[in-house]
Order: sequence, then structure tokens, then C-alpha cells
Amino acid sequence: MTTTVNAYIATAPDQPLSKTTIERRDLAPRDVLIDIAYAGICHSDIHTARNEWGGTTYPVVPGHEITGTVSAVGAEVTRHKVGDRVGVGCFVQSCGECGPCKDGDEQYCVKGAVGTYNSTTYEGEFTHGGYSQQVVVTEDFVLRIPDGLKLDVATPLLCAGITLYSPLKHWGAGPGKKVAIIGMGGLGHVGVKIAHALGAEVTVLSQSMRKEEDGKRFGADHYYTTSDESTFRTLRNEFDLILNTVSVNLDLNQYLSLLAVNGTFVELGLPEHPLQLKAFPLLNNRRSLAGSMVGGIAPTQEMLDFCAEHGIGAEIETISADGINEAYDRVVDSDVRYRFVIDAATLAD
Amino acid sequence: MTTTVNAYIATAPDQPLSKTTIERRDLAPRDVLIDIAYAGICHSDIHTARNEWGGTTYPVVPGHEITGTVSAVGAEVTRHKVGDRVGVGCFVQSCGECGPCKDGDEQYCVKGAVGTYNSTTYEGEFTHGGYSQQVVVTEDFVLRIPDGLKLDVATPLLCAGITLYSPLKHWGAGPGKKVAIIGMGGLGHVGVKIAHALGAEVTVLSQSMRKEEDGKRFGADHYYTTSDESTFRTLRNEFDLILNTVSVNLDLNQYLSLLAVNGTFVELGLPEHPLQLKAFPLLNNRRSLAGSMVGGIAPTQEMLDFCAEHGIGAEIETISADGINEAYDRVVDSDVRYRFVIDAATLAD
Repeated sequence: MTTTVNAYIATAPDQPLSKTTIERRDLAPRDVLIDIAYAGICHSDIHTARNEWGGTTYPVVPGHEITGTVSAVGAEVTRHKVGDRVGVGCFVQSCGECGPCKDGDEQYCVKGAVGTYNSTTYEGEFTHGGYSQQVVVTEDFVLRIPDGLKLDVATPLLCAGITLYSPLKHWGAGPGKKVAIIGMGGLGHVGVKIAHALGAEVTVLSQSMRKEEDGKRFGADHYYTTSDESTFRTLRNEFDLILNTVSVNLDLNQYLSLLAVNGTFVELGLPEHPLQLKAFPLLNNRRSLAGSMVGGIAPTQEMLDFCAEHGIGAEIETISADGINEAYDRVVDSDVRYRFVIDAATLAD
Repeated sequence: MTTTVNAYIATAPDQPLSKTTIERRDLAPRDVLIDIAYAGICHSDIHTARNEWGGTTYPVVPGHEITGTVSAVGAEVTRHKVGDRVGVGCFVQSCGECGPCKDGDEQYCVKGAVGTYNSTTYEGEFTHGGYSQQVVVTEDFVLRIPDGLKLDVATPLLCAGITLYSPLKHWGAGPGKKVAIIGMGGLGHVGVKIAHALGAEVTVLSQSMRKEEDGKRFGADHYYTTSDESTFRTLRNEFDLILNTVSVNLDLNQYLSLLAVNGTFVELGLPEHPLQLKAFPLLNNRRSLAGSMVGGIAPTQEMLDFCAEHGIGAEIETISADGINEAYDRVVDSDVRYRFVIDAATLAD
């Protein structure tokens, strides 16, 4: 027995997503059924739909920024009840027993966290994501959306928000710390808001000055364009932390030179080519090049609570489900301010 | 007025070092004159003597692992007195006013720390290193050798010792931490001793098992050869900290996979080619690739005191000054257990 729901599905790398129906499993004792309200469009969705990273199993429904309302719960569910406003992020299962799981870093689960889509659960079920009317998720992987936060602007926080919040917290962004964020897109603009709310001095490093006004409104103290070589002279040895939200191969030697002693440059995306850098910019100033991938369940809840407390939501453009393919093209063209969110009500017949 | 002393000097990339005389400056009020007892041979000396990094100014006397006895002090010297057993490491001057200097990270001085050789002081004097009978150094850059430590085995600690101690302390090596050290040479063998004394669980990753017995005697808990592919499977996600003492281009993706969540791989040398790595091994487990360069004056003193307390000295092979060129060839061939130390008494006429 399963439930049939409408969804938008990717069927091949070169085909647009199309409307279809998929099955959602019946509720196990610890499962939560969520009526989806919104699903964000993350660039990862596009990479997967178009098989740009390889490894896509077709057909697959993307979407790992999901908000909605609980409409049913299994017999043993204690953490959520019908009517609760909830969210689901990038993964829906992990082993719960390894070191990383016990430390609240489920995304680094040794057995392997199960992605919200294009993954297979430990029980063998292929996962489909949020571009659909409903989803069934084990309660441990369902987040509470605090009352102060509207569902639509909360949606991108489930991936973009935690992807920025986690490294900001891990590397100590706060008062007295200088943080730079490379890129003012879906990830970057949320990072600016969160870093500012954490009390850090925030600088945006962007290809152009086009979004300067927005950046400063979101909380940036400084805004520089990286197309001007003088930026790299002006900001030499400046930052404690640089978060790179842009999945392209930058000249890392140049960016590392912007780090102060003990500074860290964090890659949040997967550039197409290997990273290349000289050793000297790392040895000098005891710098680090690090990576970070979303965040665990407890930190994600902490992030949502923090955003509610500080009035932080993503800047969104809400679309109908039949606009997904056009939105994909616009994301690739960086033509969105700043995140597309699908109104799942438009999936109804 | 200057003092003329005997020294071994490099005159061209392809010429052996030869005996000569150099001038040492008269004592300024805060200067210390040191009768050199021993000078260690660091691979950096060879890179400089042979201009393998570029930037060598000939002629130059190498040597930045120096121990000896104070034989005279300037009028305003308060930290050292005649007869004191002292040491000098990799640098002899820094601005004292920038953030890194104030934080005790003189090696990252914004104005530029002045190297013990092949550098120019802020007053315009070209520096010559420790392969000589005497050296004059400002008191702030002269270290105390604690009573418990013999001068000969203390000598390599001035570069090799602090190069390992600094990152071990910075990244929290101690009880409950798993540390791997790549390479069992001049740097690595001291790293094993210090990491063990700090209470960490220590693993050596070496090209072969030839030095296993030594490694375990120095304090290694485990010893693996990297020429066996199974090592990388066995030790996956194992280490909190990996220190790379080998200045060659390793397959970083393979080594990064050995790091646990929040683990750090630290480059301590300068490989010939740029570092290359994929982003994914960094994003997974929130790993870092870092660099570290010797250490500040206060941490170097702390390291010497720590080594005295724990009975740690380098394993050395003492040579006459006329054996320097042969020793260079043997260092390049990794044919030394584990550091050459020049007996400066053999420089006398």
C-alpha cells in the first residue's frame, strides 16, 4: 500500500523535467507524512537532473529544500504531530551509530547518509525529493520550522542556510572576526545575513558590484569586486574566514593570500576541475583550505531557530511547478534574486 | 669594526661549499655574541646552497639550527649573560609591532621576518648562518637551552623540533588524538618523539618498513608503509592530524581520505609542483589542508623546555666541517639517521 502523489521528474540528462506521479511509502511507526508547501531549487538539483556529476539514476524527482505541514504520523512518532510546520533538508537517513552520527554530523555518516533524492535507503527504497505533493520521512530527519519563520522564505534554509551556518559556526564567525563570502547567489546571500547576525564583520567578494546595494542591505559591511586586481592587494592578510559559494575553479593562491594568520578558506561546492594551489600560501600565515558539506540535524534545527530569532529568511522568487525548467535555465544564468521556490500547491491536478 | 670568523660558504649552485672567512658585526646594545658549538644541516640549507628554490644570493653561509655559548653581550642585554647555553633558529629579526609579532607568531611577521641566512636585516646587513665559529644575534631571537638538554642533540630542535611542535600544539595533539607523521627523516623522527610525549596515539607513514624499529623506539604506536595500497584502506577516516614532513608531491586525495571528521593534513615543506586535489575529500568529513612554517620565539622556547622535560633530543650524526659536502649528498639520498650536526670546533684553523 502506497500513496500516489503528483511530482516533477527528471527522466534523462537532456530532457526537461515533466509532470508525473510517484508513490510514497506507507507510514512506518516512526515516519512522518508531510504535505509539502514549498520546495527550493538548488543548483545541485540541476547538476543531478542533468547528470553533470555522473551517478544520476533516472527517473528521479529532485528537491532537498522542503517545507510543509505534518498530515499524519506513525504510531511511535514523538517529535512531531499533525499540523506541525516542518522541513526536510539534504538527507533522510543515517546509521545513527557511527562516530559522526553520534556527534551530530550525520552528513558524514560512515555508513553513508541517504540523500533526500537519487539515493537508496538502507531498506532499498529509491528516494525522490521535494518537487512533489507529499513526502514520507523518518521523524529524526524532520526539522521544526519555528513560528516566527514563514514557510516560503524558510525553505532555502534547509540546504543553503545550513551550508553556510555550519562552517560559520565551526570556524568561529562572530564579533571581532572578519568573514568574506565569495558569491552573492542563493548560498552567498543567506551567508551574508547569517554571518552579520552572528556579529562578524562581513565582506562580499563578487564578480561585479551589481548586487552591492542588496549585499549591504543583507548585512555586508564591505563589498568588493574580484574583477578588479586591486581588491587582492587591498585585502591581503585580511580575513579570518573565507567561504566560497561559487563552484568554479578560482585562483586559490590569490584568494589564500587574503587570509590572516590561522585563516581558513572553505570550499562549499564542487568545482569541475581539481583544486590547484602552491604550498607556500598555506605555510605562510598557517592557513587552511577546508571543505564543508551542509550540516547535521541538530545544527540545522539550531540554524532554523537562530534565523527565526534574527528574522532571517532567504530572498525568494516563488514559481509554479510548470516553471521549473525555465527556472533551471535562469539559475544556470545566475538570473535569480536569490532562490527559486516552487509553490507545491501548483502541483495539484 | 667587525670580527672575522671561519665559515663554510656556498658560492654557486653547482659548487661545493668551501672554507672561508666572514665578518660578524660588532655588538649593538641588545646583541649577543655566540660561540657556536654545533650547527645542524637542514634540507633547506641544501635547497638554498644549490638555489633550488631560486632567490639565493651568493656567497652565503647556510645554517639555521645553531647552538653554542654566549661569549659577550651588548650593554642593554638583559635576557642572556656570558656563559649561557643558547640557540638560534630560522630567523633573527622581525618588526615586533604587527599582529603576528604581537601574537608570538614572528615567523609570519607582516614586514617579513629576517632569515638567519640569505636574508637582509632591516638595517641592510646580509645574513650568514651557523656553519661558522660565531654569530651575533639580537637577544630577543636567542633561545635558552635548558640544563637537561645536551647542545648537540638540541641543535636540530631549533628548526626540525619547532617545525613539528608548533603544528602538533596548534592542532591539539594530545591524549585521545590520533596523529600520523609522513616520513621518518630529520623532521619526522623528532615529530614522533614530541607527538608521543604530548600523549597522542602516533602512527608513522613511511615509504618502507626499514625504520620501523627506530620509529617504535621513538614512540610510534603504529608503523605503516605507504607503498602498500592496503594501508590506505585500513586507515581510512582514522586520523585527527597528519603532518607531512616529505617535500614531494603526494596523492593528496588518497592521504586526505585518511582523515576523520574535522581532521587536518598539514604541509610542512614546499613540494616542487603545485598541490592538486579534488574538492570532495575536503567537503566530506569537513577536512582541512593546511600549512605551517616553523614557529615563533616563545613557542620555540616552550618546545625546548618541553623537550628537556621529556628527555627529547634529535638523533644525530656529528660531522666535521670538511664533511659538509658529503653530508649534503647523503641528505639528498635520505642516507642519514637522522640529522647531521656540524661540530663547529672543527672550523678552527
